[in-house]
Amino acid sequence: MAHTASRGPGRPPAAKAAETRERIVRAAREVFSELGYDAATFQAIAIRADLTRPAINHYFSSKRVLYRDVVEQTNAKVIAAGIAKAREATTLLNRISAFFAAAMDAESTDRSAAAFLVTSVLEAQRHPELISEEHDALRSSREFVKWAVDEAIQRGELSTDTDIPAIVEMLVAVMWGMGFYAGYVGHRDDVAVIVDKFELLMANKLWQLRD
Amino acid sequence: MAHTASRGPGRPPAAKAAETRERIVRAAREVFSELGYDAATFQAIAIRADLTRPAINHYFSSKRVLYRDVVEQTNAKVIAAGIAKAREATTLLNRISAFFAAAMDAESTDRSAAAFLVTSVLEAQRHPELISEEHDALRSSREFVKWAVDEAIQRGELSTDTDIPAIVEMLVAVMWGMGFYAGYVGHRDDVAVIVDKFELLMANKLWQLRD
Repeated sequence: MAHTASRGPGRPPAAKAAETRERIVRAAREVFSELGYDAATFQAIAIRADLTRPAINHYFSSKRVLYRDVVEQTNAKVIAAGIAKAREATTLLNRISAFFAAAMDAESTDRSAAAFLVTSVLEAQRHPELISEEHDALRSSREFVKWAVDEAIQRGELSTDTDIPAIVEMLVAVMWGMGFYAGYVGHRDDVAVIVDKFELLMANKLWQLRD
Repeated sequence: MAHTASRGPGRPPAAKAAETRERIVRAAREVFSELGYDAATFQAIAIRADLTRPAINHYFSSKRVLYRDVVEQTNAKVIAAGIAKAREATTLLNRISAFFAAAMDAESTDRSAAAFLVTSVLEAQRHPELISEEHDALRSSREFVKWAVDEAIQRGELSTDTDIPAIVEMLVAVMWGMGFYAGYVGHRDDVAVIVDKFELLMANKLWQLRD
């Protein structure tokens, strides 16, 4: 449809429209991360996207609609891409490692992705109307970790005499700690290095400790 | 001074004044966490503290002054208390464990402490004028971890052939992941359980993994 569809006057061609939508979403992700949902305006997003305010309105009827689109696309980019990569790997460590690598790749093309995901959890508490069950990054990350841990147990790769759901939650907390770090503390290279250290820790190979 | 000072008309006794200040700071911590710095108003904080707006103004001349006080007191309560407890312990694991325990104790008396510390890092990016070098929770947490790791190496407790600064940063990221979890994901009991799992992981005792 993109190139052959006839179009009415003033309507942009589909390929151009998709590109503009993408540009708006990227600008909105930055502005939402930097200012928060309440302070973010279409005006600020328009300036960031180098478009006019009516142009934003042409694509998104309201701030809430635009915000949901940013949530959906950021989750797809970071979390869903991470899960897809992890499914190609076969061990627990390789899966978690693949997840982090894919999430960092997504982040490198768009510096605000991790920051946005962290703030989206805060915004969900501030604005319950923004919660999207389908695109809940926290839930997706937990489902991924649970799947990877359960599979490792079933395959006999992981053995432990401790509580599995608690291990899953601990890994979820660590994963979000890495996201927080990527979004608000360190640079991309720092994140790659600390993820590498955490992988060594998971392999019981980071250090030897004696009492 | 508290009980003997003579006082002018309308001025509250010092003990009562300290109590009111404390009540305002607690209400402000909640409101700043829930609404963010921009959306938080003296009016909202007054309602939460069950005081009048002029009463808040009597103690704090501006939102920025009040915010800085919340930062200072929350850091003292969570981070500084954690560090003080950790200094009483002697091994790396016991120190990190003592830090988490003290931070969770502080959190239990004031549910919004962890949430506030996480948002304060975001707010510092949004509002550079709010940054207080002296009460930077991120910097304090890093200095604590660095001290604990360096000491463990010097005592021969910790041996590793990997990069120490990167280990420190990884532990900082994990620590903030636990704070994020405490503030926005789980309940107090959940946090205690996942901290326990992380301590097992640090001891290379959480699980056995084979390829």
